[in-house]
Amino acid sequence: MLAQPAPQPELNRRLAKLTSILDVAKAMSAERDLDLLLPLILFEATKVVEADRCSLFILDRERNELWSKVAQGSKSEIRLPVGSGVAGQVAQTGAVINIPDAYADARFNRSFDVSSGYQTKTILCVPMRDAGGEVTGVIQALNKLDGASFNAEDEELLLALGAQAAGAIENALLHEDINRLFEGFVSASVVAIESRDPTTAGHSGRVADLTVAMAQALEHLSTGPYAHTRFSAGEIQELRYASLLHDFGKVGVREPVLVKAEKLYPHELEGLRARFQLARKDLQLQSYRRRLEAVKIRGQANLAEIEAEEEERLARESWQLDEVLEFILSCNRPTVLAQGNFERLHELGALRFLDAHDKAQPLLLPGEIQSLSIARGTLSPEERREIESHVEHTYRFLSQIPWTRTLRRVPEIAYAHHEKLDGTGYPRAEKDIPVQSRMMSICDIYDALTASDRPYKKAVPHTLALDILRRESDAGQLDPALYTVFIEADIPRKVLQGIK
Amino acid sequence: MLAQPAPQPELNRRLAKLTSILDVAKAMSAERDLDLLLPLILFEATKVVEADRCSLFILDRERNELWSKVAQGSKSEIRLPVGSGVAGQVAQTGAVINIPDAYADARFNRSFDVSSGYQTKTILCVPMRDAGGEVTGVIQALNKLDGASFNAEDEELLLALGAQAAGAIENALLHEDINRLFEGFVSASVVAIESRDPTTAGHSGRVADLTVAMAQALEHLSTGPYAHTRFSAGEIQELRYASLLHDFGKVGVREPVLVKAEKLYPHELEGLRARFQLARKDLQLQSYRRRLEAVKIRGQANLAEIEAEEEERLARESWQLDEVLEFILSCNRPTVLAQGNFERLHELGALRFLDAHDKAQPLLLPGEIQSLSIARGTLSPEERREIESHVEHTYRFLSQIPWTRTLRRVPEIAYAHHEKLDGTGYPRAEKDIPVQSRMMSICDIYDALTASDRPYKKAVPHTLALDILRRESDAGQLDPALYTVFIEADIPRKVLQGIK
Repeated sequence: MLAQPAPQPELNRRLAKLTSILDVAKAMSAERDLDLLLPLILFEATKVVEADRCSLFILDRERNELWSKVAQGSKSEIRLPVGSGVAGQVAQTGAVINIPDAYADARFNRSFDVSSGYQTKTILCVPMRDAGGEVTGVIQALNKLDGASFNAEDEELLLALGAQAAGAIENALLHEDINRLFEGFVSASVVAIESRDPTTAGHSGRVADLTVAMAQALEHLSTGPYAHTRFSAGEIQELRYASLLHDFGKVGVREPVLVKAEKLYPHELEGLRARFQLARKDLQLQSYRRRLEAVKIRGQANLAEIEAEEEERLARESWQLDEVLEFILSCNRPTVLAQGNFERLHELGALRFLDAHDKAQPLLLPGEIQSLSIARGTLSPEERREIESHVEHTYRFLSQIPWTRTLRRVPEIAYAHHEKLDGTGYPRAEKDIPVQSRMMSICDIYDALTASDRPYKKAVPHTLALDILRRESDAGQLDPALYTVFIEADIPRKVLQGIK
Repeated sequence: MLAQPAPQPELNRRLAKLTSILDVAKAMSAERDLDLLLPLILFEATKVVEADRCSLFILDRERNELWSKVAQGSKSEIRLPVGSGVAGQVAQTGAVINIPDAYADARFNRSFDVSSGYQTKTILCVPMRDAGGEVTGVIQALNKLDGASFNAEDEELLLALGAQAAGAIENALLHEDINRLFEGFVSASVVAIESRDPTTAGHSGRVADLTVAMAQALEHLSTGPYAHTRFSAGEIQELRYASLLHDFGKVGVREPVLVKAEKLYPHELEGLRARFQLARKDLQLQSYRRRLEAVKIRGQANLAEIEAEEEERLARESWQLDEVLEFILSCNRPTVLAQGNFERLHELGALRFLDAHDKAQPLLLPGEIQSLSIARGTLSPEERREIESHVEHTYRFLSQIPWTRTLRRVPEIAYAHHEKLDGTGYPRAEKDIPVQSRMMSICDIYDALTASDRPYKKAVPHTLALDILRRESDAGQLDPALYTVFIEADIPRKVLQGIK
């Protein structure tokens, strides 16, 4: 590139500029955030060619357009068709355009000056090329500071800078793409797994939003145990993934258990009802057998009397059977089991009827008695363990994943989301709980309470949910300082407004 | 860095070297494959300091070790403790070490020379630093070519090169990490979703291995329709993800349908059996009612005769009922429905019995007749549609994910894995099927046939599976050219040996 011999001061200046491009190349290659990388490139470009300002356009081959960020962090972009204007022509031809007097040049489009009030005089526009030599964008410098035109050395230096910038931009874009891909895959699979239990749809996403908002709210604390707790961008990301994935292990819990609405499963209740039908039929059959026996003993003459006695007895026995079924159905509901019902259920275990082969059978099976005796809710101890096992499944699942260094605590944080500070949580009855999990725990409970009705539980209003959380906090299960942050920063309303 | 004025030839040489470092910096920043990046750096380092050879060590802060690849693509590494030897000291102190005579220097460890037969004379070892100034590795040059020691300019240049290399290596490592993370997450979630149906565990991974092996086998074709079909590394990756995720949508199919082993679900069969018990009891009850009526008409004297007649009738009717149940149970099995059974099932729909409230009820419900009439397999048309809907679920799931450019066809390829070339496939009855999906289709069928027993189907031996594939190929459903590749390259045995 720099082929011709040149006088020593010029050589020294070039050497200094090349060194500075090398320095910025290093800084660029380390910057994977496009919002920080682009200003860095523009700053250096402006300096190296001694221009008033620079802009940079990235080539979108699929749409055959150049695009540029309007401002840092802004989502809105400027888009130009390839081939139009100075930048568009450089992108199309790959040739440098150096314009000594913009207003005298037909390629210059004045409309930008008109709308911005800026006055363009000199323009140097060069392509950025990737390692394969393909044009990937253009850098444009405006108004050389000394008032002269941009010179051949400026062209060389801006091309050199552009070449370094092209690689760095490509890296940053690829980095963004892969992160977006990972993020997208995680979100989509959480949605897919939540779809097995429609009543919890969206729960994981909401818990992630709530927990991240809490972590950010900690930033403003200057007193209390968390006055000095701050989370880096990487830690926030780690917390988000842990929250998003905290219930992933539910994929390992069988669907009927996941959505169990009463103490007996629908098919169990159906079986029980069929048995009561059979028992009722058995009462009728026994009655007729007795009638026939009675005729043999008391004679045909007493048949009317026998029939009357038997009809009355049958009605009474049938009514009793119905009453037992009513009682059982009342026990089946997911309310707290009433006083004395436990004893009565166990007594009913002694009832027998004759099946279709005249074999005595229990009216109520031991397993049914056990299920119906559940004191609270709808789950047997085994089913509760199965539901609770989702935390272990989540942990096992997350532990298999080769998290990057900044995300390495994701499994551990998710693992502790059902632990309690007093050691009454699960699965480890651990008291030493990461602060991230403590926050997640509050957000998880809040959302589980207030989200739409579940088969086994009606949705709880906001204020009642806060009361329940306060009780758990007062009881030493939830972290009181974090509960206070949750309330004072008004996390749920701020985050969920418009979501629910 | 390059501060002192220097004579013109030296300036020119420096300028040329800096320019060459800039060039290589650009090439490095574009190279995200560490196995290609490291040789590139070493090649340039050797050239820039005019050394005989160079080596590069990356700092592993967690283990406080330096590591280096033994050879390109090799998984084995050399590991050195930080602090020991020349490289270890540079990593520890961050200071350049320049040794004019290795054998006269205590820091030099001769053991490498002893084992390699190389003779080290001069050494230049410099740290690589990231943009934050942290040491991230070292570059070591051995034996300056002109026999002299490495000089101050060499130090400067190697440091400059190392600075560029540090950024590029960091990028490549990060790129590897994120790819590994994505890959790991995808694999783990496929395993999690497959765990819902234990009989298909590992299926997706095997289909991915088989399909990729087929794509690679196409490389060797020089005749036929695929003589010029070649897949790039990116396309192979795309195919792998599509294969790995082709059944992801099964998460949207209910578990009982997924593992249905007979035409009636277990709870349906239980309900049916209970109804037959009730009907049998009803026969007994009707019999006793008739006996009592007969006594009224024919008198008590004929009771023994009446009872004998009724017992005989009851036995006959009970036997008939048992026979009907036996017949139904035989229809319930997942074999092909025997001739005439369809008609008999529908006739049985007319049978009635009296329930416990003396209401006439059908012995066999319309839904049961429909299920039992399934001609082949265990699935009703609705259930078959539900199972088949997994392809739509997969497609919807995959379409939500922001795939990178090189992976953008993943949804489309997975979408077509149940399509047939003659348009008899699903869900779109599409005849125009991407070659990737055609390959996947063959591998999917092969694995579904030969994998372990399923509840509704015994595993099929290898040769029979190939016969079935051949028939589908002859029938114009599978691609015959690809079927030939599958057979001739012996894909299943090559890939699955040792897996199953």
